[in-house]
Amino acid sequence: MKRIGYIGLGIMGRPMAENLIKAGFELVVYNRTPAKTEPLIALGAAVASSPAELAGRVDAVCVNVTDTPDVEAVLFGERGVAQAEADKLNGLVVIDHSTIDPDATRRLAARLTELNVALLDAPVSGGDIGARNGTLSVMVGGERGAFDRCAAVLAAVGQTITHCGPSGAGQATKACNQVLVSTALLGVCEALALAQAEGLDLDTTIKVTSGGAAGSWQLAHLGPKIARRDFDPGFMVDLLNKDLNIVAHAAADHELPMAATALVAQLLREAAQHGRGRDGTQALATVIERRGGFEFGHD
Amino acid sequence: MKRIGYIGLGIMGRPMAENLIKAGFELVVYNRTPAKTEPLIALGAAVASSPAELAGRVDAVCVNVTDTPDVEAVLFGERGVAQAEADKLNGLVVIDHSTIDPDATRRLAARLTELNVALLDAPVSGGDIGARNGTLSVMVGGERGAFDRCAAVLAAVGQTITHCGPSGAGQATKACNQVLVSTALLGVCEALALAQAEGLDLDTTIKVTSGGAAGSWQLAHLGPKIARRDFDPGFMVDLLNKDLNIVAHAAADHELPMAATALVAQLLREAAQHGRGRDGTQALATVIERRGGFEFGHD
Repeated sequence: MKRIGYIGLGIMGRPMAENLIKAGFELVVYNRTPAKTEPLIALGAAVASSPAELAGRVDAVCVNVTDTPDVEAVLFGERGVAQAEADKLNGLVVIDHSTIDPDATRRLAARLTELNVALLDAPVSGGDIGARNGTLSVMVGGERGAFDRCAAVLAAVGQTITHCGPSGAGQATKACNQVLVSTALLGVCEALALAQAEGLDLDTTIKVTSGGAAGSWQLAHLGPKIARRDFDPGFMVDLLNKDLNIVAHAAADHELPMAATALVAQLLREAAQHGRGRDGTQALATVIERRGGFEFGHD
Repeated sequence: MKRIGYIGLGIMGRPMAENLIKAGFELVVYNRTPAKTEPLIALGAAVASSPAELAGRVDAVCVNVTDTPDVEAVLFGERGVAQAEADKLNGLVVIDHSTIDPDATRRLAARLTELNVALLDAPVSGGDIGARNGTLSVMVGGERGAFDRCAAVLAAVGQTITHCGPSGAGQATKACNQVLVSTALLGVCEALALAQAEGLDLDTTIKVTSGGAAGSWQLAHLGPKIARRDFDPGFMVDLLNKDLNIVAHAAADHELPMAATALVAQLLREAAQHGRGRDGTQALATVIERRGGFEFGHD
């Protein structure tokens, strides 16, 4: 594979596309807002006027948009990938780095198979920092053959590339990841709320508890931000809410009760309702504050 | 400090007492079940017939029993520490390694102060393995002077010794620790339940998610046990339930809503109700299984 298309040059897509150029791939880019293609053009990327035109010019199409309907539009909407000429589509691989519904992914993959296009679901974790540094973890679902053919493309954007299983397995793994992230975050918020109520120094509490069985990435990285009420994003509440909607849908499909995940989803929705949607996920702490009648870092 | 008393030679107390002997302290031991003193006597410890008698022979008394009433009985019950002669009590330090109520700790400390006895609350984390290897984290509350005088005693049983604040601060920190432990564990159970429902390989899911923002001690250490339905203790459900009762009491004192902690406490109580009290805390997974109508590791 040599020519790669990139659709969706947002906070994640742009640095990932840049890493593909650095790795020596020829890039063709498309973005709904054309201005966002300019930094890539400056690095040597060509630009396409539509996903369909882009698909006709490349060996693989990377997609990095927000939600399930966005991926559907890129693939099957007007001037979408599926509208490229049939012989151009034959053998194409779509690598979808968006975080979307596992079940929808399987349906999209089935539709693409009819066009002789393989779909790899390949959501990532590691945030915008991981995207810039190429240290993302990429969770891939889809046919093993397509995965193997895209190994160099995936290696250019991530550090840990894992084939998780058939189509949808990457998205399902990402859904599990977001369950872990959000429930651990809620635990951190409640633990620090108790610490503050007990008059403890929050930084000391975080330090003491981080080293053992209570330790987590969320505690070590977001705990100190909560302690100083720093709600700058990292990863935005709105995006975690979107991901937890995906989880809720999957859980409903399986009739799986997920009481803690449902709870944190409700609280994160409350955060968004109170204007914290574009803050970092640690702004979940503001919901705990309001419900508890206190502010972190104040007596 | 040279002569140390040790009361409570259970799964934690025995190895901690042994480490005090190894560090060169002269030990006097007492246990409600006298047979448990024998391994320590074999290592050179003297034995006392009651906490009161023990208190009269040492510079500091370590206590390592289960719950608040047990500590109260050791200190203020019949032939308790408080019944030693007044001049023997003068300047004594009690180091309480039990995990008990922070508020009760403060009351006990106040009563001991009247006898010129200092109380350090010094609950630990790190489990029986940490107790054996002397790698415990010790969270200490109480007067700084008493803490400093006991530095060598604490260093003999733990690797990380932290003065968390005044009396009760050690217990309060431990309470926060148990909030973090239990909420993270519930998140792991729900994430793995979703993984299984989605047909993912659980070990792959754990591996992929452990490295990033979803990572936690609970995921890395208890996730694999859940995946193979290994419910051997580690740390027992009954003990975590006891600790979460302490948390619930503290939260009620502060009128602090802790929805996630309350949820996991309910589910762990359900685990105990179904005969899992003496299993490891990862047996919380059996509650998730029963509610979800599945078993981990089976389709």
